[in-house]
Parts: sequence; structure tokens; C-alpha cells
Amino acid sequence: MSENLSWVLTDVENRIYVEDFSVNPSVLGPRAAAGCGGGWSITKTRLKGGVSDGVDVIDVNNGRLSFTVIPTRGMGFWHGSCDGNFIGWDSPARFPVHPNQINILEQGGLGWLKGFNECVVRCGCNSNGAPGIDRVRDNNGNIAEVMLTLHGKIALTPACYVKIEIIPGDPAEIVITGVMEESRCFCPQYRLTTRYSTFVGSNKLSFKDQVLNFADSPTEFMMLYHCNFGSPYLEGGSTMVAPVLEIAPRDARAAEDMDTWPSYRAPEAGYVEQCYFVDMGARADGTTLAMLRNAAGDKGTIVRWNKNQLPCFSQWKHTTGLNEGYVTGLEPATNYPNQKVFERERGRVVTLQAGQTYTIDMGLEFVSDKAGVAAIESEVKDVLGGRATKVDPQPVAKWSAI
Amino acid sequence: MSENLSWVLTDVENRIYVEDFSVNPSVLGPRAAAGCGGGWSITKTRLKGGVSDGVDVIDVNNGRLSFTVIPTRGMGFWHGSCDGNFIGWDSPARFPVHPNQINILEQGGLGWLKGFNECVVRCGCNSNGAPGIDRVRDNNGNIAEVMLTLHGKIALTPACYVKIEIIPGDPAEIVITGVMEESRCFCPQYRLTTRYSTFVGSNKLSFKDQVLNFADSPTEFMMLYHCNFGSPYLEGGSTMVAPVLEIAPRDARAAEDMDTWPSYRAPEAGYVEQCYFVDMGARADGTTLAMLRNAAGDKGTIVRWNKNQLPCFSQWKHTTGLNEGYVTGLEPATNYPNQKVFERERGRVVTLQAGQTYTIDMGLEFVSDKAGVAAIESEVKDVLGGRATKVDPQPVAKWSAI
Amino acid sequence: MSENLSWVLTDVENRIYVEDFSVNPSVLGPRAAAGCGGGWSITKTRLKGGVSDGVDVIDVNNGRLSFTVIPTRGMGFWHGSCDGNFIGWDSPARFPVHPNQINILEQGGLGWLKGFNECVVRCGCNSNGAPGIDRVRDNNGNIAEVMLTLHGKIALTPACYVKIEIIPGDPAEIVITGVMEESRCFCPQYRLTTRYSTFVGSNKLSFKDQVLNFADSPTEFMMLYHCNFGSPYLEGGSTMVAPVLEIAPRDARAAEDMDTWPSYRAPEAGYVEQCYFVDMGARADGTTLAMLRNAAGDKGTIVRWNKNQLPCFSQWKHTTGLNEGYVTGLEPATNYPNQKVFERERGRVVTLQAGQTYTIDMGLEFVSDKAGVAAIESEVKDVLGGRATKVDPQPVAKWSAI
Repeated sequence: MSENLSWVLTDVENRIYVEDFSVNPSVLGPRAAAGCGGGWSITKTRLKGGVSDGVDVIDVNNGRLSFTVIPTRGMGFWHGSCDGNFIGWDSPARFPVHPNQINILEQGGLGWLKGFNECVVRCGCNSNGAPGIDRVRDNNGNIAEVMLTLHGKIALTPACYVKIEIIPGDPAEIVITGVMEESRCFCPQYRLTTRYSTFVGSNKLSFKDQVLNFADSPTEFMMLYHCNFGSPYLEGGSTMVAPVLEIAPRDARAAEDMDTWPSYRAPEAGYVEQCYFVDMGARADGTTLAMLRNAAGDKGTIVRWNKNQLPCFSQWKHTTGLNEGYVTGLEPATNYPNQKVFERERGRVVTLQAGQTYTIDMGLEFVSDKAGVAAIESEVKDVLGGRATKVDPQPVAKWSAI
Repeated sequence: MSENLSWVLTDVENRIYVEDFSVNPSVLGPRAAAGCGGGWSITKTRLKGGVSDGVDVIDVNNGRLSFTVIPTRGMGFWHGSCDGNFIGWDSPARFPVHPNQINILEQGGLGWLKGFNECVVRCGCNSNGAPGIDRVRDNNGNIAEVMLTLHGKIALTPACYVKIEIIPGDPAEIVITGVMEESRCFCPQYRLTTRYSTFVGSNKLSFKDQVLNFADSPTEFMMLYHCNFGSPYLEGGSTMVAPVLEIAPRDARAAEDMDTWPSYRAPEAGYVEQCYFVDMGARADGTTLAMLRNAAGDKGTIVRWNKNQLPCFSQWKHTTGLNEGYVTGLEPATNYPNQKVFERERGRVVTLQAGQTYTIDMGLEFVSDKAGVAAIESEVKDVLGGRATKVDPQPVAKWSAI
Repeated sequence: MSENLSWVLTDVENRIYVEDFSVNPSVLGPRAAAGCGGGWSITKTRLKGGVSDGVDVIDVNNGRLSFTVIPTRGMGFWHGSCDGNFIGWDSPARFPVHPNQINILEQGGLGWLKGFNECVVRCGCNSNGAPGIDRVRDNNGNIAEVMLTLHGKIALTPACYVKIEIIPGDPAEIVITGVMEESRCFCPQYRLTTRYSTFVGSNKLSFKDQVLNFADSPTEFMMLYHCNFGSPYLEGGSTMVAPVLEIAPRDARAAEDMDTWPSYRAPEAGYVEQCYFVDMGARADGTTLAMLRNAAGDKGTIVRWNKNQLPCFSQWKHTTGLNEGYVTGLEPATNYPNQKVFERERGRVVTLQAGQTYTIDMGLEFVSDKAGVAAIESEVKDVLGGRATKVDPQPVAKWSAI
């Protein structure tokens, strides 16, 4: 009776790779199609030419929300659209950049920026944050200095396994699973399995990340979710709506505009980024959220996570010119994006035991009218539960090197 | 009546890519073919295997002059042939090297050399010349040291757009257009559009480069055209014929042979390169030229440019062994190929305003008999117009760090 | 009468590339098949997806011994199987890694490790051994500091030419030939031609490497064969059986277990590698061998070489956890894997004259019963010929920087 509604598109171990793939209700058998609703499609393509040559992309359309996942770039969420609104941002790096094109050591360890254009980029697993020297044990057991580059390697790691599934139901669920391994001899060994899920007709998307330490020894672990949004959610007068318990500027530059931390400026050529570190309020079970709300209050993009999994949060403002990457980042993470040595000293680097898996649950949601925005504002208020918001006028020692 | 005689082979934005393509009179409809003359062909191929894996090449033959353009390597002009003479040089790097194979930071910032084998290589857009540390503003607005590597990145940037056209006429024109973007967040944003043109049956080739600053802020810009020729144009007794107003050795090594600057030696294993900096004479409209003339004076390769666009010129002698890259470079540029910091101090780094385009017109020409060579010698004399040539015996402070 | 039984799969110069290829007796004509025996097959595949995207692999099965050669990784010998025993090791880098994925400068010059998972990896040609600064003459004839990274570049150089042959006989011979060029302007120019050979039904494999200096000037040359074996040949109680004349610990860490140098430990998470330098005894013609023998003495993997070609030998113990790369390396080489500057001072860097070829003959053999192991033990005894084994308790100045 049942049809197999899952397709393995990549499996390096078993030498499986599907270059082009497409599924939608019309290509399913009638019984399967009946259980999966209408209006959705999933298409997998291999890009060719330019810096995108060899980049696999999976375009998902659930009938209301569409988005593109990039297996070749660590299953990053490139961009999408919901209710006609563009989700993502316009980076000066206009195309998906194949990791082979990127030299992470370049530009003083900022080479990762060459491909930075996704809506959601994972930053980890061995490190994230600013580039800097770390001291680690080398293959000879000696302490050696190594350069940790901006935001780590996982976003530049192509998936070794990719699977697509349709799970019949009312509504049906679309699932994209990918596996990346950041692992080599004498180094940490991470296996990240991510499972994206969206339901047909929904304005929501979720993903569950499971990071396994598959070595025989304990290892450090860091992860940050760089969730980036530009126009139309971001504009002059947009605000971040979130249950903030405490917020502090990262540095003197951010402190300049501490009093207007919730709000965003219109595009301004040459603007220098401002970054704020946040202790976010959460429900008793750890769940919490942040919304980027447009000026009129009729559009919002919401990020949901669990503070028990991701205790730290950064708000990144980069309201530069529209051609230069006008964007804000809402960034839940295991840590603040400082150099790893600093985060380790502050106790914000996770230790994973041999064989241990760290699970992270995230959600994205897009609202397109005043009622939707108001409902989220109300939810944020509930989560905050009347607690005060402490606004630090200057960087604080627990979060910034001062 | 008219047929569409243009073909887009790559368009990353619109997910267009043609792996193999070929056009010649016999595959055109009879009307179109009638307007395009005979004997020409254009073939596009994707190389596979070795360091060339994934490199796109376009082989053009206009019936007399044939050449290969490499979209994957910034639309570089690899090599060619005219009247049976090989155009280009035999580099120890024998095959087109995919940019993904190259680590520009390697070998003290000389990693670019791994793929250096083209007849014409663009060096830019943010820098060219010797590797060295520069001090730039980083994403936090702070001054940071970054390594600028040899000759910049544009030659290692695959084209995101490639188009081929035949423009009927008598003779017909063959046009190859390519677009590269050297652009990322927090960095300059260049879009280089190059348009190669040759006419059926001609011994000439031209290209027009347009470099757009598509950021919202001003940016620096540097460009050098590394035009390289080996045998048979280069041999013991070859000379550079050009309207030189002033020439100086780059360094003490070049000064050793200052008195023989116009002439070239036979191949000599272990020869150490010599480089001379030139102020070239030009016509009132800026147009000028330089010829590499063989010993017998019956073969010449000519480079044409506009001094208003490219005010500086370098003559690079690398008359090493034939297996080691026996070659000379005739190199018109916006600057001399010193470290960028030095060129900036001397006022030789261009500023492009937001939205500004810098246009560069270049020509290559190949003559194969004494009359042709003599005509160019006469033209050079005309351009010089009786002005004297100043020969500096030692490096001069305006051009070299001394 | 004869059929052509050779197939060129890659020839970059002539734009030949075969993506998928398979040959076995059933696809040959009956006459050819008759001369080639049965049970063998050769399959060439291009891997897709993950870090292996674009990696060519050649799977050879001679009916008893099967193995995989990777043209894209310098014709490395990935892994294999003989008499049902796995040949190779389980690296944390689980898949063949395309060289384009590797930044050799990363991790303090240890970036090569990202792809380190082969059974036999060539380390050279300009350097091998530990990363470190070298001082070489640059293009301007000046002494410049360059970073030599771990184990050089040849294993990360894709073959520009690959040919498969069946040579009829009783038994028939299977031959895989590959050519790599490590060569660029202003740098050494090596052309490495390797010829793998195995006979149908054999438990042996051999390869001949020929390294040509195709420059017009002399050049330095270094080569090490990193032959790596894990389970089932390696286990607690395995031993290295070899005609050792002298053995010394590389460093204090290795000296800790000097008295048990021939034997191996069971897997142990967090074990720090130990490396021993050896002067190996050889026959008058230079031929010699080393065996990794399992605890029960019923399995052995043998490496054969010629001491006149490869005078130095290293024993590398990395008996870490099974998930972390439990392995030992038996490593004949032109030198010890110290920094090149040290080896040069000790006179262990080869000079190749212009046009000179250096030939290296190697063999691998796998025995699967007590008689086979005993025969090798006996052969080792013969080669040693009663000479004593000198065991240095501490590092010695001729081999280690102490």
C-alpha cells in the first residue's frame, strides 16, 4: 500500500550521488500524492560555472514558504520567500560560493567572508567567532599555536549524506536531512546531522541539529547560528523584539548607540557594524524567541531556539548601503563570538564526551500581517514575564575583553 | 530575417551553463552563414582531470588567428597561434590550473604562480604587484594588517557570465564577453566585464575591460596586464620596440644590464629575472604600443593600449632556460608592480567612486614578415615624435623603493 | 591477432578524460580474454558529493587482492583487501578528500592531514616531513623564507595522465600508470610517473616511481612512502619484523618505550604518537623489507624497497583509539621526516641534475597464514645476516635535532 517517499541524493560512503532531482505531487503515484497535499515541490540541482561551480542546491517550496538549502555549504539555508517577501539578504558575494574557492586563512583569517551570503549559516564546530590564535596539543603532544579562522569550518564542509523525504499527513511534512563531518587525524571529530522540516502550506520551518563526537576522547564544541535578514524585514525603523534580560555592547563602537539597541537604521554607506551581546529570557523549558519586526509592524521574521542548548545570543547590526550587504544577524549560540581563548576562559566552550551527541532545536517563522506580528510581540512579553531588561551602557567583562 | 547569433554559455544567476558548445559557418543557417564569412570556429569545452579539472576553455579561430580564452581563470588569454607562429610561452605550469587548486598565501604570498602560464593575465582588481602587508580597515572599523598576495585575485576568479556572439559583416566580428565579480562583505566590490573581439581573417584581437565599483562607497583599484611572449617571438637578439620616454631598472639586478634594456638574451638556465619600469610616450589621445620583435625582424607581437587608462608600463625579462619558462612580459598597468603601500604613497592607486566604471581598451597584433615589422617600427617612431629616451642607470625613487 | 588492451583514461594535454570505465574478462573479446585469466576487474569511477566530489578512483581486483588507487590524490593507494583482510586503516577523515578541499597552510602547516587516510601516501617531491620554514631563492634571486608544509604537495597533485593496461600472460599483469607534475615558474619542476603492477591471482603489488627533473637547472628532491596499516594486521601484540641495524627514538616521547620498539599496543584513546628512525639492513643489491606481523603470527603485511633508492626508514606508531585512527606507518624514504633544513644539513636531501630521473621500486605483499609469516621472518633473518641491531635509548644527533 505504501510508497517509499524518501530519496537519498548523496551518500559518499556508498558512492551514491544524484545530480538532478525533482519531486512534486504530479510525479508521485496517485495514492502517495493523495496523502501529501498539493502545491509543493522539491528540486535538487548542481550549479555550474563561476564560483558556484559544483554547488548542490535544494529548492523547497511548501506552497507558501520556499527556501534553498545548500548541501555543499554545510546544509546552510541560503534564502527563501514567504507570502511574497524575500527571506535573506543581498550580500556583495552574490552567488553561492563553493568551499573550494575559499581560503579561510586569507585576509587575516577572515577568508570565510568570501562565501558569506546565507540567511542561516552554522558557525562551528571546533570554534566560531573572531579569528585568533589558539594553543592546542599537536600530534606530538606538544602545545602548538594554531590560527582559528572566522566562524570555523562547518559551513564550508560539503554534506557527505543528503536525503529527502515526504511524510504523508494533513499537512504532509517535507524533510531534508544532511550529514557533515568535520574530522581529521589528530583533531576533533564532529559528525553534524541536520534535519530540516516544514509542513505543506506552513509559514514555518524547523531544524534539529545533532552533533556527535565520534572520537574516543572528549572534545571541545562551539556552535553559533548566524541568522541574517535584510530587506523587506529590515529597514529604517525595524526593531528586534525579544525577551532580553540583559544586553551589553560588544565594544566602544556598539556602545555609541546603546540607547537605541532595539531599533535599526536605514541603509548608510560606510556604516561600521555594531554588535550586542544578550542574555535572553526563556520559558522554564528553555524555549525562547526573537523577532525582527519591520517599521510598519506588518512583517516579521522569527527565530526560535532553546536556551538550554544555546545559552548565548548576539544581535549584529550591519545597516550599511543596500549594495554592500544591509543586514542584521540574530545569533543564538553556545557562546559569544569572541576569540575561542576568551570564551574558554569564561567557561563558554562546551565539552563533548566520546560518543556524546549535542542536540539543538531551531525554528524559523515568517509573519506577514499586523495580527501575526502582534501575536509574536505578545508571546515575547509572556516569555519575559515581567522581568526587567538590564541595559549595560558599556562592554561588560563577562562578555567582552575590556 | 535575422538569426540570433549570440549564445549565453554561463549565467550563474539564472542557472545557465553549457558544458560543450561549438559553432562555425557550417552549423549556422545559410543566411547567417552568408553574412559571417568562412574559416572560423568557436568551441567551448570543459577540461577534465589533473589540475585542469573543471576549467572551461573557449577556443576561437578566426581563420588566421586562433586563441584560447579561459573563463574559469578570469577570462585570461591562454595562448594562440597566428600565421603558424605560437603566441604565448611554455610555462613550467603546463596546463590551465583551476583556481581551486591554488593557495594564494603559499610560498610567502606567491601561490598565484602555480597557475601562471597565460599569454595575457589580468592582475588586480584590489591589488597587483609584489606580495606584502597592507593596512586596511576591517569589519570593526579598526586598522588591520592583511597580506596582499602576488598579482591579486581577479585571474583566479571564474566568470559568472559568459556569452559568445557572431556579428555579421564583412568581415564578421567574433565577440566573447565575460563577467567576473571580486566582491565580498566588508571588502571592495568589483565587477569586471571584458569583451574580446576579433574579425574573421584578421591578425588582430582587442578587448575592452570595464571595471565597476558596485558598492555604495569609494574603493581603490589597480590593474596590470601581464602580456607574456616566448618563442618564436622571443629569442636571443629579440628587442622591445616602443616609444620609451624614460626607463629605469627596478632594482640592482636589473641595473646590471641597463645598457642593453631593449634587447633579449638567448635562453640561459638559472637566469634571474630583470624588470624595467617605463614612462611610455603616447599620441595626444593617449594611444600607444610596444612590440616584441624577433632577431631577424620578420616576426613581431604588438601590444596596444591607452596611456590615459594605463599610465605605467613594465618590461619583464625572464630569459631563463627553455624548459623553465623563457618569456618576456610587456605590462601596461595603472601602476608599477610594487607593493600596494608603495604605489599608494606615490599616488598610483586609482580611486573608483560608488557606481563608477573604469574602462580599459587593449589590442594585440601579430605580424609575420619584414614589412609588417617595419610598419610597426615606423609607427613607434611616429608616436615618439622625436622625443628623447631617458635611460636611468639606477633605480629611481619615484618608481622603486631605494 | 592482438587486441589493444590499454586505455588512456586521462590525458589533460590532449583533452582526454573518461569519467566511468570498467573492464573485466567478460567485456574483452574471446581471444584477449583467453590470455588474461579470470576473476579480475578494473573499474574507474568519479566520486561525487561531499569532500570527495570530483575524486577519481580506480578499483582493481586481481581475483585475490583488491585495491583502490586515487589519481586525483597523486595516485595514492587508498585501501584494499587480500584474502578477506582489510588493507589500510580507519582514519577520522573517512572519505577520499579532494585536494581542492585542502589548505596546506592551515593548522600551522598541518593542513595536509585533512585528507590523510590512505594506505600508501607519497610525501614529496620538494619536501616531506614536519612543517617548517625554509630559506630559498625567490624570483628576484633573493633569499626568502617560505613555509614548507607537512609532507609536501605531491599527494595533493591530481594526475594529468592515467592509463590502464592488461598485459596477457600466465598470469596476466594489470598495470596502472599515472603522471603528476609538481611544477611552476620560479620553482622546482618534478614529473612523477608511477606504474602500479599486480598479477592476476597474486597477493602482491608493486610500483615503480620515476621522478624527472624537467627543468634546465639542478633541483633538490625528497620522497617518503607513508605506508599505513591498521586492523587486522595491527593489534595489541603485533610486531614490526625487519632487518634493523640501528634504531633510535625520534624524541623523548618515543624514547619512553624504546625497549618495546618492535611491538605494538592495543588501541588506547589519547595515545600520543611515537616515531623511531631506523638504519635498515639490506642485501648487497640494496633490496630489503619490513613486515607488520599480527599477534598470532598468521597475518602479515610486507613493504619491500631498495635501500640504494630509499636509504632511510621511519617506524610510526599511532596506536590511539580505534575511532581516532589506530595505525602504524612503515616509511622508507630518501630522508628522515624532519624539517627540510635539518635534513639538508645532514646531507640527506637528494640533488637531481637537469633532465635526471630518480627511480624508486616498491612492493607490497600480504600473507594470511602462519607459513607465509614464517617465510618472511626467515627472509628478514637472511637479509640481516647475523648483523647486530643497535638500539639507541635516546635520540641521536645524526637523525634528530637534540
